[in-house]
Amino acid sequence: MKSLIFIALTLFCVCQLAAQDQKLTWSKLASGVWAAKAGQPEKVNFTNTSGVAPKLEALNAMPNIEFPLAENEIKAVVFDGKTYLQFPLEVAEKIFGLGLNFKTVEQRGRILRLHMDHYGGKDDGRTHAPVPFYVSSKGYGVFINSARYIDVWAGTAVLKDSKIPVNARDRNTDKNWTSQPYSDNVSFLVPAEGVEIIVFGGPTALDAVSRFNLYNGGGCLPPKWGLGFWHRTPTLYNDEKVLNEVAEFKKHQFPLSVIGLEPGWQSKSYPCTYEWDPGRFPDPAKLMTQLKEQGIQTNLWINPYISPESELIKKLKPFTASHTVWDGYVPDYSLPEVNTIIGDHMKKYLLDPGVSGFKMDENDGYDNWLWPDVTLFPSKIPAEQMRQLYGVMMQKMTTQLYHEQNHRTYGLVRASNAGGVSFPYVIYNDYYSHRDFITALINSSFIGVLWTPEVRGSKTAEEWLRRMQTVCFSPLAMLNAWSDGTKPWSFPEVEKQVADVANLRMQLIPYIYTCFAEYAFYGRPPMRAMNLVDGFTSSDETVKGKLNSTENPYAEATKKEMKDQFMVGDNLLVAPLFTGETERKVILPKGKWYDFYTGKLAGEAEVINVKPGLDKIPVYVRDGGIIPMFETAQASLKSGEKNNLVVRFYGKKEATYKLYDDDGETFDYEKGAFSWREIKVIDAKGGKLKGSISKAEKSKPDNIGTVEFQWMTE
Amino acid sequence: MKSLIFIALTLFCVCQLAAQDQKLTWSKLASGVWAAKAGQPEKVNFTNTSGVAPKLEALNAMPNIEFPLAENEIKAVVFDGKTYLQFPLEVAEKIFGLGLNFKTVEQRGRILRLHMDHYGGKDDGRTHAPVPFYVSSKGYGVFINSARYIDVWAGTAVLKDSKIPVNARDRNTDKNWTSQPYSDNVSFLVPAEGVEIIVFGGPTALDAVSRFNLYNGGGCLPPKWGLGFWHRTPTLYNDEKVLNEVAEFKKHQFPLSVIGLEPGWQSKSYPCTYEWDPGRFPDPAKLMTQLKEQGIQTNLWINPYISPESELIKKLKPFTASHTVWDGYVPDYSLPEVNTIIGDHMKKYLLDPGVSGFKMDENDGYDNWLWPDVTLFPSKIPAEQMRQLYGVMMQKMTTQLYHEQNHRTYGLVRASNAGGVSFPYVIYNDYYSHRDFITALINSSFIGVLWTPEVRGSKTAEEWLRRMQTVCFSPLAMLNAWSDGTKPWSFPEVEKQVADVANLRMQLIPYIYTCFAEYAFYGRPPMRAMNLVDGFTSSDETVKGKLNSTENPYAEATKKEMKDQFMVGDNLLVAPLFTGETERKVILPKGKWYDFYTGKLAGEAEVINVKPGLDKIPVYVRDGGIIPMFETAQASLKSGEKNNLVVRFYGKKEATYKLYDDDGETFDYEKGAFSWREIKVIDAKGGKLKGSISKAEKSKPDNIGTVEFQWMTE
Repeated sequence: MKSLIFIALTLFCVCQLAAQDQKLTWSKLASGVWAAKAGQPEKVNFTNTSGVAPKLEALNAMPNIEFPLAENEIKAVVFDGKTYLQFPLEVAEKIFGLGLNFKTVEQRGRILRLHMDHYGGKDDGRTHAPVPFYVSSKGYGVFINSARYIDVWAGTAVLKDSKIPVNARDRNTDKNWTSQPYSDNVSFLVPAEGVEIIVFGGPTALDAVSRFNLYNGGGCLPPKWGLGFWHRTPTLYNDEKVLNEVAEFKKHQFPLSVIGLEPGWQSKSYPCTYEWDPGRFPDPAKLMTQLKEQGIQTNLWINPYISPESELIKKLKPFTASHTVWDGYVPDYSLPEVNTIIGDHMKKYLLDPGVSGFKMDENDGYDNWLWPDVTLFPSKIPAEQMRQLYGVMMQKMTTQLYHEQNHRTYGLVRASNAGGVSFPYVIYNDYYSHRDFITALINSSFIGVLWTPEVRGSKTAEEWLRRMQTVCFSPLAMLNAWSDGTKPWSFPEVEKQVADVANLRMQLIPYIYTCFAEYAFYGRPPMRAMNLVDGFTSSDETVKGKLNSTENPYAEATKKEMKDQFMVGDNLLVAPLFTGETERKVILPKGKWYDFYTGKLAGEAEVINVKPGLDKIPVYVRDGGIIPMFETAQASLKSGEKNNLVVRFYGKKEATYKLYDDDGETFDYEKGAFSWREIKVIDAKGGKLKGSISKAEKSKPDNIGTVEFQWMTE
Repeated sequence: MKSLIFIALTLFCVCQLAAQDQKLTWSKLASGVWAAKAGQPEKVNFTNTSGVAPKLEALNAMPNIEFPLAENEIKAVVFDGKTYLQFPLEVAEKIFGLGLNFKTVEQRGRILRLHMDHYGGKDDGRTHAPVPFYVSSKGYGVFINSARYIDVWAGTAVLKDSKIPVNARDRNTDKNWTSQPYSDNVSFLVPAEGVEIIVFGGPTALDAVSRFNLYNGGGCLPPKWGLGFWHRTPTLYNDEKVLNEVAEFKKHQFPLSVIGLEPGWQSKSYPCTYEWDPGRFPDPAKLMTQLKEQGIQTNLWINPYISPESELIKKLKPFTASHTVWDGYVPDYSLPEVNTIIGDHMKKYLLDPGVSGFKMDENDGYDNWLWPDVTLFPSKIPAEQMRQLYGVMMQKMTTQLYHEQNHRTYGLVRASNAGGVSFPYVIYNDYYSHRDFITALINSSFIGVLWTPEVRGSKTAEEWLRRMQTVCFSPLAMLNAWSDGTKPWSFPEVEKQVADVANLRMQLIPYIYTCFAEYAFYGRPPMRAMNLVDGFTSSDETVKGKLNSTENPYAEATKKEMKDQFMVGDNLLVAPLFTGETERKVILPKGKWYDFYTGKLAGEAEVINVKPGLDKIPVYVRDGGIIPMFETAQASLKSGEKNNLVVRFYGKKEATYKLYDDDGETFDYEKGAFSWREIKVIDAKGGKLKGSISKAEKSKPDNIGTVEFQWMTE
């Protein structure tokens, strides 16, 4: 009885409007990872929902460092049913992350509500991956493990009792008056009576991101075929048209690894049956076998809303929400029953006949196309949390289905979040600003998600080629022609250039696959922001003299947001051009950088101006950069079939590189069936370079035929 | 002890995530007004904060009607610390209100989060008056008395167990597929564990609005000078420049009732001192006396943020929030101490020397210019509620200050909300779309607020004149030239036309003042939406045949949103033109309508096309319309000075009209010192009309000289 009264009194106190200052006790979870609880954290959060274990071994192999913030400057208060959090900011500190933003890279000075939604053109927190994680240029990260709509004031909230004293100015007369006075903190409002906070150390920003990714299970490792070229057919195509389309790719000598079928593969869609339309696809297993024989996988579009006419409904209906979407039932994916019912259905009708994966649409929101937040789910998980997590839960279910079959999948999703790092899905949307797509690609690297700047249509051949050039340097190289039926060769005047970059993508698979292995094993994002590269990560570079674009353009440029160039792995720097541009500025980090195509020196810690022509997307390689490539674009991505390699080498510096390999399609690598082969370039004598590659470990998959070194820099 | 355990257990249950269905018990508060409580409503709400008593006598004089909704179709659930509300919608029902929207009038099909903010260009609920009240075309209103950020799904949420059964369509093949399936309800998510709901009956939508207004204390009655012409001077003007500006108005023969001084009247601003700048205004009392002698009142700009250099701070600081805005302290206006400290300061430095009122800026938000929601206020009222209520609290304090002095005030504010109906403030903002300003004027009439489409600058003489024409038919006719220093005569090519409409505004004061008296006494908004006019209020008009713009344009037009024409009182219909337009369509309600300027028949229940020329704004008068006007624009607005009247009469129908009058400047009318004089027009013989006006009641103020009737329609 006493303890009941105690509980009761405690609850009573919580319900009163009194601000409860929370003492935060930081416990170390792994090397460079600490957690603390404010108030009573909810059970539903990102890590519990994903159910993915942290990669402790990899984490603990990272440097053991000190807690990166002043503990006494982190404040937590529980008040009004919410948790108020405050983290210190130093004067020159930059903040990155806080969701998949499309227009900005630096978040200091911004106010966001992290809310799952279709991106609506404003970096206000409503986006496809509203991840409550930020990385600081000081080399640490902060993760708020709550699937609520979290408000963030990233260096805008000004405290009355700040260490930096109030400095009021008169707007009438003082020219230095500013509408945004200096703020010394990042603040969060979490609408729950408690929350788990996790801090990731560095020492670099890339280390902090890597630790965040590893804590969330590490990045995904796609099957090799996932890194080839994808194409999606118009929505009402039938089996014959699909086969014809595939034949056209052959005819035009374009690579093709995955064909995507859009809503019309189903008997009904919006809401969906998850059942093949017998008219358009009388024998899907046969079709998919025919495709596989040509090295082509099949990916299916779905959305979450289930048609009353699906065979699923009889069993599923009791496990669906109070509200419908497009008059379709909304499965409560937090329930094991739902995963079993839909999982069994998918296995029977889709996986077993040979479907390689899914494009999971419309799980992100856009308020008018989603259940309202007053929806009640049978699990009693509030609609707000369901919305933040729905995409993650769909990814989890399908990932597990394929895992059970020991086939890797790779697919597309509109919604992801923290917890989803290890699931093999790439985010896409309908926003279609090419420039902003690249900024999103950059931002995806801070928050443990993947993003594709997919190509749909274009107004001009120039735009078409520019878009194709960037998508081929992204996590998923796809032409999504579901609506307008464009083909890669739809603009004949640039057909060759498009084929060139698509073939280059195919040839780069050994390099890109290794980037993904680094993501999976070490948490390092495959494509990444310049702000995660040495020399741009820390804000303690002292810049001498005035900052302006004539006296010291490099310092000036690196102080600006870098939102139109990015890295692929450690060695490639990609600087896309957009429609209407014939030249652009490229910021080269410290060290020498070489032109990818010619091997010529491009520059060193400087801003260069380049006019690459329409044919090429500017790409640069680090000094000592080793780029393993397939000898030809016709390489086979099937397990066990050997491909010859060409290893390009740039610059003059001795270097080593670890090339990852495994069977490329199963989960056997989780049991050790992989190898990291060392490629080594040494200065044999007087500047004469010599390359070597180690053998695959005994009894490990070996898909490499001959290896030829190309010395790109004369 | 037992009761403690009971409380404890109750609280424990509330804290569990179980959906608690609430039984709603409706109690009648007045004729046609019912309230029910779901869960445990919070003490802080709109009606408690405003502290204004309902006008019960006026409410009970309205028709006694039945509860307007099916009680069993109103649902309330308390879950996850929030209250979920659901109200039924019928098929043809339209929904109006839900905050000060700028682009839409009809809200059915919309999703909003009612959140105090500067209007940002989208009708998403973020606006200067996010009032949680809607009016139905079926003639009732629903008010959610909670100052939280309330989410609304106004006819978008589709229930699995709706009476209208699920009607899933196949998007692949069904042309009738829609992205917005039929919804049978309005749903609210109130982030609090309980809420008071108040329902207002009709029978018409205007009745429901009137009841809402009366329940909130009735509309404001401005002083007569408030309805004259206003002008604001550039921010750094001094006393001499102000007097020169006033002299220019005389010289150009433009009316002027109020001069507004912008931030520079203060010693410091952003944050503010609320103290005169001794350099620019060495003797403010003298200046204001000089102005009053010319019939001109003085209005002062302020914002809420107090400079550390204000004399106020010594006493005020302990009663300010944890965060600052522009490094200024944020007073907690919910505390009596704040009202006393700031009230005394204002009396001493501002009211006593003769200031007539305030323009209260930046209390609405725009997130980057406000305290964050993690701010803690000394009263322990959460920042969310403070934000929703701040404008109302500032209005309340200043209204009370003037009430104590028995001087009416009239001013401007950026933020209002439910509860603020009776406070004499008009909302304005920086958005400046002329067309959307008119839509806002229309929407203000549904939600108990006033809005001015103030004029600032213009690109062309045409725009200048068109804007001046509309502001002269609004609650507050103002040129706000603080930033660019334009004058009414800044476009010489339209100087005469601008003067004409400004003078017309002055002449119309008897009519407009009466409109406001109807607002104050009967709750009827002075300017109002067409959807509040007979013939447009109900959705049960049956329209025969197909709706299209060639076969039955009237029915078609009245089914569209009416967002560019409005009523001033019962008798005037105003149909503005916007830049670039030389003609427009005007929808005339049932009954005959006459041209205001010529008295000629314009039409009857039809859509007319008008080409008024640049000089005139189209205005129409109802059949039997009586429009009392001052004989000249030089009428005195001072109490006790008599003005001659001209009473215009339109059409042929016998009619009566009640003309309101009182001293025009004190609160003596609250003690009965007013009269409603009856103006009567009868058909004396064979179509010969005859007019009469009753005398003012004995010992009541009488400001009317001679009365002349003008028979506008021959």
